[in-house]
Amino acid sequence: MKHVAHPPSRASFPVVAVLAGLLATGCGAPPQSASDGDAVDPGRAKIATAPHADWALAIHGGAGVVRSSVSPEEEPAYRASLEAALDLGSGILADGGTALDAVEAVIRTLEDDPLFNAGRGAVFTNEGTNELDAAIMDGSTLACGAVTGVKTVRHPITLARRVMERSPHIFFSGAGAEAFADEAGVERVAPEYFFVQKRYDQWRAVVEGEAAEAQGEPADDAEAQGGEDKHGTVGAVARDTHGNVAAATSTGGLTNKRWGRIGDVPVIGAGTYASNASAAVSCTGIGERFIEHTVARDVTARMEYGGESLQEAAKAEIHEVLEPESGGLIAVGADGSIAIEFNTEGMFHGSGDSTGQRSVGIWQ
Amino acid sequence: MKHVAHPPSRASFPVVAVLAGLLATGCGAPPQSASDGDAVDPGRAKIATAPHADWALAIHGGAGVVRSSVSPEEEPAYRASLEAALDLGSGILADGGTALDAVEAVIRTLEDDPLFNAGRGAVFTNEGTNELDAAIMDGSTLACGAVTGVKTVRHPITLARRVMERSPHIFFSGAGAEAFADEAGVERVAPEYFFVQKRYDQWRAVVEGEAAEAQGEPADDAEAQGGEDKHGTVGAVARDTHGNVAAATSTGGLTNKRWGRIGDVPVIGAGTYASNASAAVSCTGIGERFIEHTVARDVTARMEYGGESLQEAAKAEIHEVLEPESGGLIAVGADGSIAIEFNTEGMFHGSGDSTGQRSVGIWQ
Repeated sequence: MKHVAHPPSRASFPVVAVLAGLLATGCGAPPQSASDGDAVDPGRAKIATAPHADWALAIHGGAGVVRSSVSPEEEPAYRASLEAALDLGSGILADGGTALDAVEAVIRTLEDDPLFNAGRGAVFTNEGTNELDAAIMDGSTLACGAVTGVKTVRHPITLARRVMERSPHIFFSGAGAEAFADEAGVERVAPEYFFVQKRYDQWRAVVEGEAAEAQGEPADDAEAQGGEDKHGTVGAVARDTHGNVAAATSTGGLTNKRWGRIGDVPVIGAGTYASNASAAVSCTGIGERFIEHTVARDVTARMEYGGESLQEAAKAEIHEVLEPESGGLIAVGADGSIAIEFNTEGMFHGSGDSTGQRSVGIWQ
Repeated sequence: MKHVAHPPSRASFPVVAVLAGLLATGCGAPPQSASDGDAVDPGRAKIATAPHADWALAIHGGAGVVRSSVSPEEEPAYRASLEAALDLGSGILADGGTALDAVEAVIRTLEDDPLFNAGRGAVFTNEGTNELDAAIMDGSTLACGAVTGVKTVRHPITLARRVMERSPHIFFSGAGAEAFADEAGVERVAPEYFFVQKRYDQWRAVVEGEAAEAQGEPADDAEAQGGEDKHGTVGAVARDTHGNVAAATSTGGLTNKRWGRIGDVPVIGAGTYASNASAAVSCTGIGERFIEHTVARDVTARMEYGGESLQEAAKAEIHEVLEPESGGLIAVGADGSIAIEFNTEGMFHGSGDSTGQRSVGIWQ
């Protein structure tokens, strides 16, 4: 169910652990060190009881997956893609690279992979187009960038990073975001680049299923499958050897989405958040539920204001706050601990760190 | 929908909760329940710095205002508009109306008022258009709705409420949001409806100032004024006699904005958030800073997870987390307490409650 790099031992010394947090601040929660969050807060380091890892990485490929949508023949391909993405990010971190570079590189390779609902493999909108969203955040400065509704950008995560680094703003949309892509020298492609037969067939199945339902007929299996498989996303979170964390998330959104619907991915605090004061978090699932509960920020806020451990905060958000079948999240704490939680049948995920921990999985 | 969960660490470590309360002496509130979703929390009532009120309302008209941008002749007009909006919302709440109806009605009247940067008085984009953003949230269910980049909707706040109530989604953008407006029967107007000479002159001053700066010339006063007055927004937060809170925010965004820039207003958790577990919050200022710090959600998270009072949480976010000149916020707690904080020279604001408290102001 969960793949925890280090067994959380804080629960066995709750009083000591929480008192450490209280004494560190005098106010029942660690200080908001976001504005100067370029190092792990010492008070929080006392709270953290998981063994320290010099670097840590966790990735996901979406929580919408169900067994009926992944054939036994396809499963090895998904695992191979996750292993390759882990190898890429782990290599960057092991070589002393930044968390920001690692999560961007991981997302770029997953965006190029037609297996996942992001970049090339993006699902189709109600208009038969592909509209991509992405966000990235640097936990050392709280600087962040996000884009929504881009149709011709090969790597939305790189565009999001350029927005963060080369504009005074954070969040760009649609044609304006694509105009900025040209100014920033971010690669654009023809809309046809995003055509993937499986995604197209899923979209048609959903459209036909809705038409059938509109006529009072029960949705068939194909529609159900397309429907179940609608919530794909890719994400990466990392802690580097310099002590900084970063998070990145990218998606094609919701199959057959309309009305310019924006999900949780580009909403900073909902699907993506990172702060050296606590952790880096990337979410996947039914976006609206993650927006309502600002899930990514809440995991970090529970740690910063409530003195919860990364494991406690991640479990509470996924298994207590959210309803079953909502989705999941990956998180890496400023201390290098890793949390992977989901309340769906499956979530493509993987993790690795400097202690040698390494895992890839799909099902509960 | 499940409400915000009581932090599990507090429920499982009662001894620590008590110790936390003792240690927290001098910096405010002991830990308190965050799970009381539809009634005033006795614990919170004890720590509220304002007396309990059956209903309470706070409104703002933007924190970007500086004395040089409001003439002595104009100030009475701004105050009269704020008084009228307060009268409207207070009447609805005093008659037993809902917080949701009160904040929507207040925002609608401010959207129709050319004095404020929202609806009719929206600032101009780099393309010489007016693009509006708005968000609304129901603290009793965490249901929320938001729209960005709409150009032909008279009352974006009402469109945001329709998105919340009549779609399975939360956040719609651009042409898609306008198509939904037609389906939901929300009034649309010609783009010319949003032409206001003062806003147009401010935009031209900014454009000319940027052109002058590009040529190495210092920006003149007009540009400085246009620049200083760029961050307008309108917002309303309320607690009704049924014990529910709601928040609403609407804006024309940033003068001369480009690249489809989205600010904090429609980003749930940044400019707008509401939960009966804590408070309703609406922010105004330099949107990017409010997105990075998820200010609206952080005020409520400090209360829910850190046991801070509404006043402590609002002061901490505006005066400790944010840098000076970033902006401000208004908030109403589930107990009817009111917080109004800003770190700019001025913020158009007003408040009133069932105890007879009533105030309208602009400057620090």
